[in-house]
Amino acid sequence: MTFDFSTVVPKHLPAPAGARWSGFPKYNFVGGHNDPDSLPLDKLVEACSNVLQREGKTLATYALESGPQGYLPLREFLVEKLKKYSGIDSSPDDILLNSGSLQAIDLINEALLSSDSTKPQTVIIEKSNYGGVISRLQRLKVNIETVDVDEHGMDTGHLETVLARLSDAGTTPAYIYTIPTVHNPTGVIMTQPRREHLLLLATQYNVPVFEDECYADLIWDGQRPPSLYALDSTRRVIHVGSFSKTIAPALRVGYTVADWSLLSQLLSLKTDAGSGALEQMLLAEYCAQHFDEHLATLNRNLKVKLDTLCAAIDREFGTSAEYQSPPGGIFLWVRLPDPVNTAALARAAEAKGVAINPGPEWSLQSDASQYIRLCFANPPLETIEKGVRALAEICHREFGVPVFSANTQR
Amino acid sequence: MTFDFSTVVPKHLPAPAGARWSGFPKYNFVGGHNDPDSLPLDKLVEACSNVLQREGKTLATYALESGPQGYLPLREFLVEKLKKYSGIDSSPDDILLNSGSLQAIDLINEALLSSDSTKPQTVIIEKSNYGGVISRLQRLKVNIETVDVDEHGMDTGHLETVLARLSDAGTTPAYIYTIPTVHNPTGVIMTQPRREHLLLLATQYNVPVFEDECYADLIWDGQRPPSLYALDSTRRVIHVGSFSKTIAPALRVGYTVADWSLLSQLLSLKTDAGSGALEQMLLAEYCAQHFDEHLATLNRNLKVKLDTLCAAIDREFGTSAEYQSPPGGIFLWVRLPDPVNTAALARAAEAKGVAINPGPEWSLQSDASQYIRLCFANPPLETIEKGVRALAEICHREFGVPVFSANTQR
Repeated sequence: MTFDFSTVVPKHLPAPAGARWSGFPKYNFVGGHNDPDSLPLDKLVEACSNVLQREGKTLATYALESGPQGYLPLREFLVEKLKKYSGIDSSPDDILLNSGSLQAIDLINEALLSSDSTKPQTVIIEKSNYGGVISRLQRLKVNIETVDVDEHGMDTGHLETVLARLSDAGTTPAYIYTIPTVHNPTGVIMTQPRREHLLLLATQYNVPVFEDECYADLIWDGQRPPSLYALDSTRRVIHVGSFSKTIAPALRVGYTVADWSLLSQLLSLKTDAGSGALEQMLLAEYCAQHFDEHLATLNRNLKVKLDTLCAAIDREFGTSAEYQSPPGGIFLWVRLPDPVNTAALARAAEAKGVAINPGPEWSLQSDASQYIRLCFANPPLETIEKGVRALAEICHREFGVPVFSANTQR
Repeated sequence: MTFDFSTVVPKHLPAPAGARWSGFPKYNFVGGHNDPDSLPLDKLVEACSNVLQREGKTLATYALESGPQGYLPLREFLVEKLKKYSGIDSSPDDILLNSGSLQAIDLINEALLSSDSTKPQTVIIEKSNYGGVISRLQRLKVNIETVDVDEHGMDTGHLETVLARLSDAGTTPAYIYTIPTVHNPTGVIMTQPRREHLLLLATQYNVPVFEDECYADLIWDGQRPPSLYALDSTRRVIHVGSFSKTIAPALRVGYTVADWSLLSQLLSLKTDAGSGALEQMLLAEYCAQHFDEHLATLNRNLKVKLDTLCAAIDREFGTSAEYQSPPGGIFLWVRLPDPVNTAALARAAEAKGVAINPGPEWSLQSDASQYIRLCFANPPLETIEKGVRALAEICHREFGVPVFSANTQR
C-alpha cells in the first residue's frame, strides 16, 4: 500500500497545490513579471562571464568570501544606489542581502511577530496592499489594522486615529508596514509631508516602520521624496528593496537596510547557508556599470506599455472602468462598477486564457471586489490590447458591463 | 532617541549574531566548503554564457517558464543522474528544486512537524548527525529519538527497539531521518540489508522516511547500494539532494524527490516566488554535459586531501587520535581521548586561527565531546598539514594530548 502524506499533514496548513503547473496564460496580467524585451541580455552575459572568470573560485565556499550579509560588491553598489535614488546614507554593514524581498519579509516577521504571548500581535498596513503581505499576516493570525490610502499615499490622519485607539487599548503595534513609493496596487507616491507625519507618529507611539520599496525605482519622471529610512533619525525604519522589478524577478535577490539591533537578529534567523551567490555576483557586476542607463530604458518601455493598457481600457470599457494612471510601477488598479464581482470575473477570464488579479487578493477595503489589478510589464503591446478586449467581452457576457451599444464593432 | 529592536524581539528566538563577520580563519576545517581548485571554472563560464544567450529573456518572468517546481532542464538532468547514481526511477514531475537542501529540510519540517496538538512530534535520527538538522529539531522542540550508527550505517536492530518502544507508548514518529550514503559526520555507507530492514520497519510501523543524500556522489570507488527511495515500493521515502557538494556550495540549489501527496504540500508552503533561476540554468547546462567527468576529478582530488589529512593526524597526534578513513565525503570524524574536551579545544583553536567543529554540534551521543569533525575539502594540502600541526600543539598545551616525547622535533 502506498503512503499518503496528506493523511499526516496538519489541517491548519495551506491547502496543497491543486494541480501541476500547465504553462502561462495567453494574456498574462497577474503577478509581477517584467518586460523581457527590456532585459539587457548581452551586457548581463558579459558581466556574468567577467565576474565568474575573476572570482568564480569563491563559489567553492559558502557565502563566498563576503560573510553572511552577502556579496560585498553588491552591498557597495547598493550604498551608492540608495544614496542616489532614495536619499539614504548607509554603509555595507547596514545591508543584508536576501533571497528576494520575500525572504526579508519572512525574516522580519519571524523576528517581530513570533511572540509567545497568547495575545496576537498587531500590524498596521495600508488598506489596499501587496497580496503576499496580506496572506502572510493572515496565516500568522496577526491582528491587521488597516489605514486608508489616497492619491497622496497612506492617510496619516487616519493612521493617527488608529494608533490612538490602539494605544488607548494598551496595544503597541509590532510595526507599521507601508509601500510609500509606487504603492502596490494603487501606484501612488506618498508625499513628503505625509512621510514626515508618519515618522512623527511612529516616534510618538514608539512603533517600528517597515518600508517596502520594491517598485520605488520605476518612476516615469524620476521625481520622488526621500525614503522614510532617509528621513528618520531614530533608526526605527526597516528598509526593504529588490532587484526583481529593476533587473529580473527570476534572479532572487532582495535586501534589508536596518539598524544592527535588528540585522543581527535577522542574521541568526537566516539559517539558509547564504543566498544564491552567482545572482549576487552578476547583479553587482552589471549594476555598478549599467544600472542608471538600464533603468531609464526600462521606465521608457514600461510607460509605453502603461499608455497602451490605458488606451485599451478606455476603448474597450469606456466609462465603466475607472483608474488613476500611476506615476510609475508595473500595475494598474482598476475599478469596475456593480454588478461586477472581480473574483468571479477572474475565474471566468482564466477559463478563456486571460489572467487578472481580483481585488480581494490585494485589498481589505469593503469594495475590494470591484477592483482588478493588471500587471502591464510582461505582455507585448499587441497582447495587452487583445487581452483587454477579451476581458471586456468576458465581463460583458458575465455581468453586462461594459454595455456595448448597437453600433459597437465587436 | 534611537530605537533598539532587541527590546521588542521575543526572548525565545535564537540569540542575535554576536559580531560582524571578520573573514575566514587561516586553517578552515569547519562547515561544508569545497575544493576551489576542483571548480571547473572555464566550463561553468561557457555554460552560463550559452544558457543566458539562449534563454535569458525568461528571467523576466518569475520561475522562468518552468513553473514552481523549478527549471525543467535541471529536473530532466536529475532524472538521469538519480537513475545512474542512486538507482531511482523518476520523472521531472516527481522533483521539486529548492534553494539549497536546507530549504527542503525546512519545508518538509513545516509540512510534517507543525502539529497544532500540544503533544510534541517525535523524530528518529542517527545519534551522530548533521548539525543543521539537530539544531532545527531542537528549535522546533521536537522529541528527538536517536539510533546508533556503526560501520554499516544506522543500526536497524536498535531502530526496531526504538520503534517498538514508541509504538507501545502510542507514538508514531513524524519521520525517520537518515543520511544513509556517506553519513555526516562519520562518512559510513549503510549496507543494502540494513536499508531493506529500515524500509521493512518503516512500513510495519507506517512511518515516512526522510533520506538526505547530499554527499552520496562523493565516493572514492563509486560503489554504493541503491538509495532508500529506489528500494522502497510504498512511496514513503522523501529523497533530498544538493549540488553544494558536487559542484559548489555558494550556488544554492537542492532538490526533493517525493510522492505528489507531499510535493503538492511543499509547493503550497514554498512562498518564495521561486528559487534562484540563473543558478538552476547554469547547473542544468553544465551538468548535462560534464557532471560525470567533473565528479571523477573532484573525487580524485578529495581523496588526496583526505589522505593528506589522515597522514598529518597520524604524524601529529600519533595514537591519541582515532578515526576510520571514510569511503567518501569531505569530513573526517576523529576521536580524541580524555581529558580532551572538544568544545573547549575548538574555542582555544579558534583563537589561534584553527577552525574545527566540536563533536557536540554534530552528535547527541554521550561521549560527543571527545569528537571533532574536520572538513578537508577546502584548505590546500600544505594548509591541511600546517593546520593539523597547529591543532596538535594547541591540544597538547590545553590538555596534554598528544604527549610529545623528548625527541619529537617541534
